[in-house]
Amino acid sequence: MIIDLRSDTLTRPTPGMKEAMFSASIGDDVFGEDPTVNALEEKAAGLFGKEAALFCPSGTMTNQIAIRLHTRIQTEVICHKNSHVYLYEGGGIMSNSLASVKLLEGDLGKIIADQVQAAINPDDVHAPETTLVSLENTMNKGGGSIYKLEEIKPIRKVCDAHGLKLHLDGARLFNALVETGERPADWGAQFDSISICLSKGLGCPVGSLLLGSKADIKRARKVRKVWGGGMRQAGFLAAAGIYALDHHVDRLKEDHLRARALGEMLSQQNYVSEVYPVATNIVIARLEGMAPEDWLKELSAKDIKAVKFGPDLVRFVTHLDFGDDQLEEFGRRISVL
Amino acid sequence: MIIDLRSDTLTRPTPGMKEAMFSASIGDDVFGEDPTVNALEEKAAGLFGKEAALFCPSGTMTNQIAIRLHTRIQTEVICHKNSHVYLYEGGGIMSNSLASVKLLEGDLGKIIADQVQAAINPDDVHAPETTLVSLENTMNKGGGSIYKLEEIKPIRKVCDAHGLKLHLDGARLFNALVETGERPADWGAQFDSISICLSKGLGCPVGSLLLGSKADIKRARKVRKVWGGGMRQAGFLAAAGIYALDHHVDRLKEDHLRARALGEMLSQQNYVSEVYPVATNIVIARLEGMAPEDWLKELSAKDIKAVKFGPDLVRFVTHLDFGDDQLEEFGRRISVL
Amino acid sequence: MIIDLRSDTLTRPTPGMKEAMFSASIGDDVFGEDPTVNALEEKAAGLFGKEAALFCPSGTMTNQIAIRLHTRIQTEVICHKNSHVYLYEGGGIMSNSLASVKLLEGDLGKIIADQVQAAINPDDVHAPETTLVSLENTMNKGGGSIYKLEEIKPIRKVCDAHGLKLHLDGARLFNALVETGERPADWGAQFDSISICLSKGLGCPVGSLLLGSKADIKRARKVRKVWGGGMRQAGFLAAAGIYALDHHVDRLKEDHLRARALGEMLSQQNYVSEVYPVATNIVIARLEGMAPEDWLKELSAKDIKAVKFGPDLVRFVTHLDFGDDQLEEFGRRISVL
Amino acid sequence: MIIDLRSDTLTRPTPGMKEAMFSASIGDDVFGEDPTVNALEEKAAGLFGKEAALFCPSGTMTNQIAIRLHTRIQTEVICHKNSHVYLYEGGGIMSNSLASVKLLEGDLGKIIADQVQAAINPDDVHAPETTLVSLENTMNKGGGSIYKLEEIKPIRKVCDAHGLKLHLDGARLFNALVETGERPADWGAQFDSISICLSKGLGCPVGSLLLGSKADIKRARKVRKVWGGGMRQAGFLAAAGIYALDHHVDRLKEDHLRARALGEMLSQQNYVSEVYPVATNIVIARLEGMAPEDWLKELSAKDIKAVKFGPDLVRFVTHLDFGDDQLEEFGRRISVL
Repeated sequence: MIIDLRSDTLTRPTPGMKEAMFSASIGDDVFGEDPTVNALEEKAAGLFGKEAALFCPSGTMTNQIAIRLHTRIQTEVICHKNSHVYLYEGGGIMSNSLASVKLLEGDLGKIIADQVQAAINPDDVHAPETTLVSLENTMNKGGGSIYKLEEIKPIRKVCDAHGLKLHLDGARLFNALVETGERPADWGAQFDSISICLSKGLGCPVGSLLLGSKADIKRARKVRKVWGGGMRQAGFLAAAGIYALDHHVDRLKEDHLRARALGEMLSQQNYVSEVYPVATNIVIARLEGMAPEDWLKELSAKDIKAVKFGPDLVRFVTHLDFGDDQLEEFGRRISVL
Repeated sequence: MIIDLRSDTLTRPTPGMKEAMFSASIGDDVFGEDPTVNALEEKAAGLFGKEAALFCPSGTMTNQIAIRLHTRIQTEVICHKNSHVYLYEGGGIMSNSLASVKLLEGDLGKIIADQVQAAINPDDVHAPETTLVSLENTMNKGGGSIYKLEEIKPIRKVCDAHGLKLHLDGARLFNALVETGERPADWGAQFDSISICLSKGLGCPVGSLLLGSKADIKRARKVRKVWGGGMRQAGFLAAAGIYALDHHVDRLKEDHLRARALGEMLSQQNYVSEVYPVATNIVIARLEGMAPEDWLKELSAKDIKAVKFGPDLVRFVTHLDFGDDQLEEFGRRISVL
Repeated sequence: MIIDLRSDTLTRPTPGMKEAMFSASIGDDVFGEDPTVNALEEKAAGLFGKEAALFCPSGTMTNQIAIRLHTRIQTEVICHKNSHVYLYEGGGIMSNSLASVKLLEGDLGKIIADQVQAAINPDDVHAPETTLVSLENTMNKGGGSIYKLEEIKPIRKVCDAHGLKLHLDGARLFNALVETGERPADWGAQFDSISICLSKGLGCPVGSLLLGSKADIKRARKVRKVWGGGMRQAGFLAAAGIYALDHHVDRLKEDHLRARALGEMLSQQNYVSEVYPVATNIVIARLEGMAPEDWLKELSAKDIKAVKFGPDLVRFVTHLDFGDDQLEEFGRRISVL
Repeated sequence: MIIDLRSDTLTRPTPGMKEAMFSASIGDDVFGEDPTVNALEEKAAGLFGKEAALFCPSGTMTNQIAIRLHTRIQTEVICHKNSHVYLYEGGGIMSNSLASVKLLEGDLGKIIADQVQAAINPDDVHAPETTLVSLENTMNKGGGSIYKLEEIKPIRKVCDAHGLKLHLDGARLFNALVETGERPADWGAQFDSISICLSKGLGCPVGSLLLGSKADIKRARKVRKVWGGGMRQAGFLAAAGIYALDHHVDRLKEDHLRARALGEMLSQQNYVSEVYPVATNIVIARLEGMAPEDWLKELSAKDIKAVKFGPDLVRFVTHLDFGDDQLEEFGRRISVL
């Protein structure tokens, strides 16, 4: 048995989810006629108290569309220098929206309102106009760290004061919400747009949703089209999303418990000098005296998979396919490294 | 029973295709680990004698990626003014690739080598550099018209002489090939890249393939990523594609026969002044004395659906879900208009 | 003596203009401190009843900035297929603004309101949103043809009805106005932005002006900056512009008289099958039985220069350095061809 | 007498330079026929041992063209986070070239080869491809700090090893060269392109030059055109450039001596906690206990002008119009603050 902790995107649909997929009513979503896609979009928008939603093939697409919506050519986006939108989306802020980036630093991948305030460009011909702040919750490169709603509100205030839009890359937002107990609608109220991913912790095969105003989602549909993200009988995929929202949100807590246990185990390991605080389902271990590549090879020899996450960092992600048996087995295998 | 002839994208998977989807082996395609996606890409590339292929959510994405590959900022694409890449892809040539267009005219949506030659920009600072010719086969706005391989070769020659790339939007290429009997590999040999669609006549729910050189497809993967077209467990969709290539190509001839019969019926109608020559599965009728909107309303009252396709044109497309029974019923309903 | 009629951009400053240039007060225009640039911008804006103006190195820059202002990524510009903004500005509509083009046809390079109306894209996900109509007066490729104000008003109406902006490429607008006697302010009232060129008929060495609203010109300054169009002590060039507006507008009529005389002479020539109606300072001759290249060689042998302007067309432009002596001499030389 | 040390762009042409401008031979540079522009381009290219040069309205344009030449859509540029190309050119890397940025830190605005090596993106679908390193010498935000040729060579080596281009923003390159005594041609040999500015220390009213290979400069001409940087009778401006290269290079040493004296004076001031090492003609003072805005007001009351250069920084730049008299007077005025 391989224990694959490289990402929570690796999960395969459960039997229940698969059953939902293959009994879905479908239609041509480019014509707006797929009933299951429509139902998923409505359900997700409602959950977060937003007017509308758009189903897309990936979280990169939902994020990149949001950035397109909230910028113009020659404007600037404020985000953490380790944010997914800057680091892992192919340079899309620049090449998809022709916008510049102001990259901030901050503990565990998080930024605060004062930093945002100071990062807004002056009204000067030399600088692009700042129009957007993009946050990520949970923060992947921060070890699955959580923003509390109370941390968002001062940032929202700065945005309001300067006419900036505020986007949330919520690829793992549900991981945060099940920990804090905060309500999706309260998060929806703070952001102009939210991207949520169905194919990470929620366990769907494909898909993300962009949530926003009716007008923005209408424009989003055009952007999705020009990049070729419009799918025909997408209801098969959307059905998994509906199933996941109904059955796979609460169980994320289990992934977090197992991540904490896994963090404990890792911190006992030779060469592991530090484990980031485990807030959700991501565990980042810092190595000393061994290169990530070498350690990953050792793990691989024990049929354990993880990924290099920096010059001296390795990341493990718990998920739907990593149950108590796998955790126990992980412990056994790692104990003899 | 509604007879829906708006598009061949509207079909639902057959039981056999659904069975194939449901039992597919899957993995995370962003990690390159979905075995069914890999198998489909290999199969399609092999069929056309190209080195590699890339599975994407739509034909717009495969076309737009090809255009990105074969242009640079401030270059120009030669295509027919009615081509899908210019008319129906959201202006993507410009907004995705920052390339200009030289729009040619020609009967039934087709262009010839002499036109291409004359349309190449001179080496002058005022004009963008011409780098790409894009053709479409069959040609949607030409009424499903067919390019013969012999018509392509002189265009390829002009391209070679001027260092231009040649792309084929083959959304309905199989419709052409079953009529002409030409071999896919012979088409592959003429083009730098070919886009083929699985969700039109072939009846899949979602997906297109871009075929090209290994180096181009590697770059294509990056473009797909930045637009958010990378999907996780896409094998469910790819399985339908494999099934379609095995079972749904030859049967396109039936769609063509029914399209011809349908064209006959339409040409008998009042208000129909002309029916474009029916070459494949598309039938375009020109109206006189009645607006398309009004005629479509009349048809709709008889549970027949088609689409407006110009100020005085209406388009019907035959497909997998339009069998002999539907054709007969269509005849009955239309006879009493 | 070479008689150079390739373009009206070829003129050299008159002694009076040169005197004005080199006695100009100057400052750093990037700091907004060049008094002569400021005076020119104010003067030009006032003349056309616009709020503000921006001095730029060329008419391509003023046009391209206007297009940037009035479009967004994935929108569309309506213009004549022979307009300068599409044909001679390097594909800038696409590469500078990521906008698509809808190219219209029409006699002498002109389009009418009904065409504009029909060319506006429907509110459909497949098509870029139409946001701008761009006209050119006089129309270079139409042989210096003139739009009358009465032809503009219905187009403005269509724009208003559909929320479109209307831009005028007025590189040779003064040539039109001295013929029609229409007032600049009446033209200013019809357009959201106007580009006027100082280095064509007006005889300045360098420069164009973009006229528009205060808000638009503020944004224009940012676009000029990012393309590197901000110049330091530009007052030397602006002084020529002030001089030209004061002294070189009315005299354009002389260029037109000489152009008409020149058109007469050309129409007598062998191989000249047609001369476009001469409305201003441009004369286009159509050849029959001889290639433009060959005819230009014959002319060149007589020290006459003109340019090829199409497969069978040659263009001559009259200007400040082409006086009655040159006209007479032109007649002598051409009579013996 | 106002002592204006805001920038070295503020200088006015000397009588000799003006005389050169006024008597220049001119022509239409868009036709390639301005003899003075051609002479300047040849002279500058020759000086640095490059094949060709292009005269442009500004250093922003020459830098931005170079970046366009050395990138493609969805690639990445490595530069210091305080470099002019990122901070002061309107976000042009992104909006002009659709390229991403990797922003490095380093003392006095300089970076080293190891940093460059570590900043190159891996061959991974998530990251844009690194294609260009851009350096700046002298470094404006580093207080006019100097790169020695020996510091460049290891960076060039990294570039060669990874197929990266190397561009130099040499807006104040001559300030560095007169200090180090290094030869322009040795610098030319290290870079794929160099941008030099005529309107800073060299005292010209307008203009910069891009130096590079023949093929690159040919492409550069197209980019200049599409942004509207092509000027007609630009010889007036180019004549100043030739004059400056002949007469204003060596005298930069005087600016540096005065800058050092000025730095001494500033370091004696209350509220000035630190003066950056003065390497050339830029003096940056760090304040403590007083905001830059307030200090600038006090200076302004004494008719001294400088600019805010960060939250607690003020910049002074010496130049052609700041002689010994002004320096002495500066000392008098500042002594009584």
